[in-house]
Amino acid sequence: MTALGENAQRAAKLMAKAETAQKNAALVAIADALEQSRDQLKQKNAVDLKAGEEKGLDAALLDRLALTDARIDTMIEGLKQIATLSDPIGEISDMSYRPSGIQIGRMRVPLGVVGIIYESRPNVTADAAALCLKSGNATILRGGSEAIHSNQAIAACIRQGLENASLPADAVQVIETTDRAAVGALLQMKDSVDVIIPRGGKGLIERVSNEAKMPVIKHLDGICHVYIDEFADKQKALDVAFNSKTQRYGTCNTMETLLVSDKVAADILPDLAKMYVDEGVELRGCEKTGELLKNIKQAEAADWDTEYLAPILSIKIVDDLDQAIEHINQHSSQHTDSIITENYTHSRRFLREVDSSSVMVNASTRFADGFEYGLGAEIGISTDKFHARGPVGLEGLTSLKYIVLGDGHTRA
Amino acid sequence: MTALGENAQRAAKLMAKAETAQKNAALVAIADALEQSRDQLKQKNAVDLKAGEEKGLDAALLDRLALTDARIDTMIEGLKQIATLSDPIGEISDMSYRPSGIQIGRMRVPLGVVGIIYESRPNVTADAAALCLKSGNATILRGGSEAIHSNQAIAACIRQGLENASLPADAVQVIETTDRAAVGALLQMKDSVDVIIPRGGKGLIERVSNEAKMPVIKHLDGICHVYIDEFADKQKALDVAFNSKTQRYGTCNTMETLLVSDKVAADILPDLAKMYVDEGVELRGCEKTGELLKNIKQAEAADWDTEYLAPILSIKIVDDLDQAIEHINQHSSQHTDSIITENYTHSRRFLREVDSSSVMVNASTRFADGFEYGLGAEIGISTDKFHARGPVGLEGLTSLKYIVLGDGHTRA
Repeated sequence: MTALGENAQRAAKLMAKAETAQKNAALVAIADALEQSRDQLKQKNAVDLKAGEEKGLDAALLDRLALTDARIDTMIEGLKQIATLSDPIGEISDMSYRPSGIQIGRMRVPLGVVGIIYESRPNVTADAAALCLKSGNATILRGGSEAIHSNQAIAACIRQGLENASLPADAVQVIETTDRAAVGALLQMKDSVDVIIPRGGKGLIERVSNEAKMPVIKHLDGICHVYIDEFADKQKALDVAFNSKTQRYGTCNTMETLLVSDKVAADILPDLAKMYVDEGVELRGCEKTGELLKNIKQAEAADWDTEYLAPILSIKIVDDLDQAIEHINQHSSQHTDSIITENYTHSRRFLREVDSSSVMVNASTRFADGFEYGLGAEIGISTDKFHARGPVGLEGLTSLKYIVLGDGHTRA
Repeated sequence: MTALGENAQRAAKLMAKAETAQKNAALVAIADALEQSRDQLKQKNAVDLKAGEEKGLDAALLDRLALTDARIDTMIEGLKQIATLSDPIGEISDMSYRPSGIQIGRMRVPLGVVGIIYESRPNVTADAAALCLKSGNATILRGGSEAIHSNQAIAACIRQGLENASLPADAVQVIETTDRAAVGALLQMKDSVDVIIPRGGKGLIERVSNEAKMPVIKHLDGICHVYIDEFADKQKALDVAFNSKTQRYGTCNTMETLLVSDKVAADILPDLAKMYVDEGVELRGCEKTGELLKNIKQAEAADWDTEYLAPILSIKIVDDLDQAIEHINQHSSQHTDSIITENYTHSRRFLREVDSSSVMVNASTRFADGFEYGLGAEIGISTDKFHARGPVGLEGLTSLKYIVLGDGHTRA
C-alpha cells in the first residue's frame, strides 16, 4: 500500500502538468480499449456474477454488479463525454491590479491523489477514473470484493489508454487485494492521499468518515423534502410532489417527507394522496394528515428521520413557512429540499434559510444531479460545507492557488 | 464545553440569516465598545503582562502580548474596515438555464461554527471574531492562557456590540478556562464545530491537525523561495530577493532559501550577498555558492527544510528552471514561491508547475497576505488544497449551495 501511495504521488505530479489534448486522448483511448475488450469484460464479469450467486447475493446486488452491453455502452459514452468537457486545470480567474501595482488572480489546480472506495457497481471504476484524469489528479480505486474481476478488467483498459496517450499508467491504480484491511490502510495514508470519496451504503460511508485521516467528500443520507406552501399553484404542487417521490425510489435525491401548509392541505392532499396510492406508494401521516386522509398509517417520530429508498412517504401538515423551514433544518440530511410557492417573499426566505446543499423552488428534488446541473458528470454529492457542496463534478476535484505578477515589485 | 457548542450552533442559525446592516452595526458597535473600554483593556492587559513577567516569558512573547494604544487603534480600525467590506453571504453566482428548463446557480452560505485556537496576541480575538461575524458564522475562541484577562476584556466588548445590534451574544464565545484539556475537548466536537483554525507556533498547529475531528484550515511552515532565473533582470532580482528576505524576518511569507541559476550567479550573487551582509543577514550556501562567495557558512541538508524566521538565508545555485522547480516542489512548504525572469515561457512554466498556494513572477514573497491581495483581512493562510488555499479572508469562511428555480418542472 505504501508503494501504491508513492506511485500515485509521482503520477499526480505528471498529471498536474499534462496537456489537455493528452488527457482527452487518454479518455478516448480508454473508451476504445473498453470497446475492444467488450467480450473479455463480460467474461470476467460472469466470473464475478457466478461467485456472487454462489455467495447468495440478493437480486438487487447482482443487478448492480452486472456489466451488460448497455452498461458498457454507457461507460464508453461517459468517457467520451468527459473528453469533451473543458479542462478546468490552469484556468485563471479574477486577475486584477492592486494599489501596490501587483496583479493578482487565481489558477485552478488539481487536488493531487484522490482515493475512491465504492461498492458493487463496476462502472464506477471507469467513471471515477475519467473524472479524476480530466481534472489532473491521480486516483487510487478500491472497488467491492464481489466485483474484483470486472474491476481489474476495466483497470487494464484504463492503463492501456493512459499508456497510449503517454500518460503514467499509475495515474489510475486499482487495489488488487480484496483484503478488507487494505481499506483501513488506505484511510491512514494522509501523506499520499489528498482526499477520499466513499460511494456506497451508509455503513461504508460511516466507516470511511470515522477512520479517514484525510478529508472526505461524502453524503450519508438523502432525506429530501418538498414543502407545499400556502401560496402553491395546485397543479405545480401535484406535479412536483409526485415526481419527487415516484420518478425513482432508490436514489438519494428522492423526496422522503412531504410537508404541506394547513391552509391548502384540504384542497391538495386528497388528490395527491390518490395519485400516490394509485402508484403503490405507502403513506404515513402526522395526526392532522390522518384526519384528512382516512386509512393511512400514522407516522412515528422515526419516520421524519428515515431515508426509505422505497415507495413509502411520510407526510406532515405544518402551520406556516417558519414551521416548514424549522422541520427541514432539523430533519433534512442537507441534501435537497424544495418549496412549491408562487409567493416572492416565501421563495426568497426558503432559498436563504434552508441549510441544504441544493435548495429549490417549484422544481423536483430529482433534478439534484451532476448531469442535470450541467457539470457533465458527478463523482458524488456532498452534503458537507467544507470544500465542495452539492453534486461534485470536475471543479470539486480541484483547488485554486493564487498567482501574482509583478515587475520587480517589493513591499514597502 | 458541550453547552458552548450548542450555544454556538443556535447562534450560527441566527447569524446565517442576519441582515448585512445588522452585522455591520455590530462590528461598529464592537469598535465603539473597545474605544470606550480602552483604559480597562490596558488594565486587564497589565495583569497578564505582570503574570507573564513573573512566569519568565521572553521579551518577544511579552511584546506580542502587550495591548498598546497603537494596537487597540489597529483593532478598532480593523473592525471598521471589515464593516465596509461587501457581505459575501447570500451572493448568487453562475445562474443559468439548463435544457430541462430549470434555472440553476449557487448561493454563498456561512460554514456554521468556526473554532479558533491561538496563542499570545490578544488582538486576534477581535480580528477573528470580526471576520467570522461578517461571514455569518458563530465563533468559539480559545486564546493563550497568558492572555486570558486581555481576551476576556475584549470578549466583553464583543458581546456588548453584538447585543447592541440585536445579534445573539453567543455568536462569539471565548473559552473562559485556561485548562489545556479544554482544547482537547474542543477538537472532538465535530457535531457542533464545523472548522478549526489554529494560529500560532508549529507545536500548536501540529497538535490541532493531529487531534481535530473536524476540518482544519492551517499552514505549518513558511519555507518560501525566490528563484533568480537565467533570464532575470538584475535590478529586479536584487530588489525582490532583498525585500523578500529583509522586509521582515519573523513572518511566514519571508524567503528562507534563494535559488540562483548558474548562468547568472557570478553576475548577481556577489552584489546581492553584499546587500545581505550589510543588513546583517547570515548566508549559508551550497558548495558552488561557497566557491563564489568566500567566507560564508556551508549549508547542511537540514537548511533546505528550515524556516529560520531570522536573519539567516540559505542559497543554492541550480542548473536550470527544471532543477529550481524540482527543488521548490520538494522543499517548499507550499506557502509562497517567486521567480525572477523576463522569459515568457519560464514564467508560464513556473506559474503552472510550482505547487504552492501563492506563486509569483517578479514580485516579493512578502506580498502573500490577505490585505495585499485585497481580501480586506485574513484569518490565516492555508497551505492545504482542500477548501481554501493561500490567504483566507471572508470567502474562505463560506461555502456555496446550489439553488434551483423552476416553474413546476419535473424530471423525465
